[in-house]
Amino acid sequence: MQGVVMYGPGDVRVEKRADPRIESPTDAVVRLAATSVCGSDLWPYRGVESAAWPVPMGHEYCGVVEAVGAAVTSIRPGDFVVGSFFASDGTCEICQEGYHSGCVHREPACPGGAQAELLRVPLADGTLVATPGAPDEDLIPSLLAASDVLGTGWFAAVAGAAGPGKTVAVVGDGAVGLLGVLAAKHLGAERIIAMSRHTDRQQLAIEFGATDIVADRGEDGAARILELTGGYGAHSVLECVGTAEAMRQAVRSTRRGGHLGFVGVPHSVTFDGLEMFFSHIHLHGGPAPVRAYLPDLIQRIYTRQINPGLVFDLRLPLSHAAEAYRAMDERKAVKALLMP
Amino acid sequence: MQGVVMYGPGDVRVEKRADPRIESPTDAVVRLAATSVCGSDLWPYRGVESAAWPVPMGHEYCGVVEAVGAAVTSIRPGDFVVGSFFASDGTCEICQEGYHSGCVHREPACPGGAQAELLRVPLADGTLVATPGAPDEDLIPSLLAASDVLGTGWFAAVAGAAGPGKTVAVVGDGAVGLLGVLAAKHLGAERIIAMSRHTDRQQLAIEFGATDIVADRGEDGAARILELTGGYGAHSVLECVGTAEAMRQAVRSTRRGGHLGFVGVPHSVTFDGLEMFFSHIHLHGGPAPVRAYLPDLIQRIYTRQINPGLVFDLRLPLSHAAEAYRAMDERKAVKALLMP
Repeated sequence: MQGVVMYGPGDVRVEKRADPRIESPTDAVVRLAATSVCGSDLWPYRGVESAAWPVPMGHEYCGVVEAVGAAVTSIRPGDFVVGSFFASDGTCEICQEGYHSGCVHREPACPGGAQAELLRVPLADGTLVATPGAPDEDLIPSLLAASDVLGTGWFAAVAGAAGPGKTVAVVGDGAVGLLGVLAAKHLGAERIIAMSRHTDRQQLAIEFGATDIVADRGEDGAARILELTGGYGAHSVLECVGTAEAMRQAVRSTRRGGHLGFVGVPHSVTFDGLEMFFSHIHLHGGPAPVRAYLPDLIQRIYTRQINPGLVFDLRLPLSHAAEAYRAMDERKAVKALLMP
Repeated sequence: MQGVVMYGPGDVRVEKRADPRIESPTDAVVRLAATSVCGSDLWPYRGVESAAWPVPMGHEYCGVVEAVGAAVTSIRPGDFVVGSFFASDGTCEICQEGYHSGCVHREPACPGGAQAELLRVPLADGTLVATPGAPDEDLIPSLLAASDVLGTGWFAAVAGAAGPGKTVAVVGDGAVGLLGVLAAKHLGAERIIAMSRHTDRQQLAIEFGATDIVADRGEDGAARILELTGGYGAHSVLECVGTAEAMRQAVRSTRRGGHLGFVGVPHSVTFDGLEMFFSHIHLHGGPAPVRAYLPDLIQRIYTRQINPGLVFDLRLPLSHAAEAYRAMDERKAVKALLMP
């Protein structure tokens, strides 16, 4: 099969790789209908994160089950499935409490890389969710989004306690931030302030439910949020970047007693104990428990209540993966979908 | 009047000071029935925290209102009142949301020091709560506890989401930690693990509702909590110390998706972003919004559902304040009550 491998910063190649096979009785092999490039794939691409090169890439996926191991009971070959980027057993106490991405047996769900034609997924029963029948073609981008960016934006909104009567501020206008806006809207938030300085992303934020746009960043951005909220700060702030500057902005935009949900993988981020103490913030984040949300998200997509697939503003064949990375790196695309 | 003044580390004196008077129409002056030494008073006493010496001490109080300013409407001279250590306006959005100690107008409630015969309290309407009639003498220690340590332990348990079905671990066996145990019990927690290596404190923890005692500390303490919880960690951890070691122990004792409530004023504490991310912990703490809890706590004390006054294992006249500080510093007393 063909698959994407990163050989070093900026060096993305599509090459022939061995077809994945069932290795354990709890595995499934999925023929991918679509896959994509994640904002977090840009950390190694930009050399901010090192890796044991070469690395097979990708952890966002949906497609048709081709084979399952002998112990798999909840999905069958032929099922269309969506899965999380973390494999989970689905049975431990942490999974039962809805934190599948904190499963005591968690492991990467895409050891071979999901930017490929075929993918082996471990712990298939606890990781994959079958859709109700084969999806209409136009739903596939949204189902793909559910496997990570939508689930992650959703978790940001849940962790940030977005809901009725709340003013929500979203830091980060990447796909996760934009889908954080969508999640806040569908969780009932009253006012949603998207922080973005790019016209196209502002437009999409508004389409997803943003009521206000703030183009300021850092201290100025936080000051603007305070100004818009009577000096109190937002009830609910979603941090969807992962840098120290974005986190500082998020902390200072949150009112005392408010909630900060953070889903950007922290890079050189620390929280000062005394600032956290006197800010009275509820802080919660981490890798999103996407698996917990999938049944609900699939249902919302199938009934066309939400259209998260709109974040894909670039579609390319898998063979053009390098172009997809470049476009996202240069912020010419919000998010690229790759067709295997 | 007589009042306690700290002149430097270890130097506590009781001296004649000017009687406080109504300075602003929102003030009240209270004749104190009892006051006490707080664990946080030991930070400057031990020289860990500096101060603009000499400093009038104390922020835990209850007593009879002697005078009120012209704008005060909810309490009257003669009322027996309990108040928080932070004065709050009671009307801003933050107060309305139950975070009085985060009030936009918050200020120290005891500018003149509560270890004294008389105390001026600013923002009296938003800060003080009158009890239903004069309390029986034996309830006074419990009402005094409500003004800080009980309210703070209660907040730790609320912030840590202690409740039915939950396993709670309490880090710190000072008065706040012990009352965190009591709070967790009365909030319905199933299992409460008190971390203490002092027999007398272990006994009190058990009296307050602890089901397990762990004497190990630091990494060993966290490992023991994991061992006692099937490898998962506690659902709910209450950090009631404020040191980096105690916080690390607390973080590592919390299960993924669990809650860590912290009320020890952080001294040289930082949280690593990546550890917080992958630990999936809910983190929440700060100065306890005692005012929000007072009506409920007073009710529980009056109906004798709880007896938090048991934390006072040393009672001395106000004039013996230096002895009270020494006993707490040397851990010969859990908490000292001073009688003005």
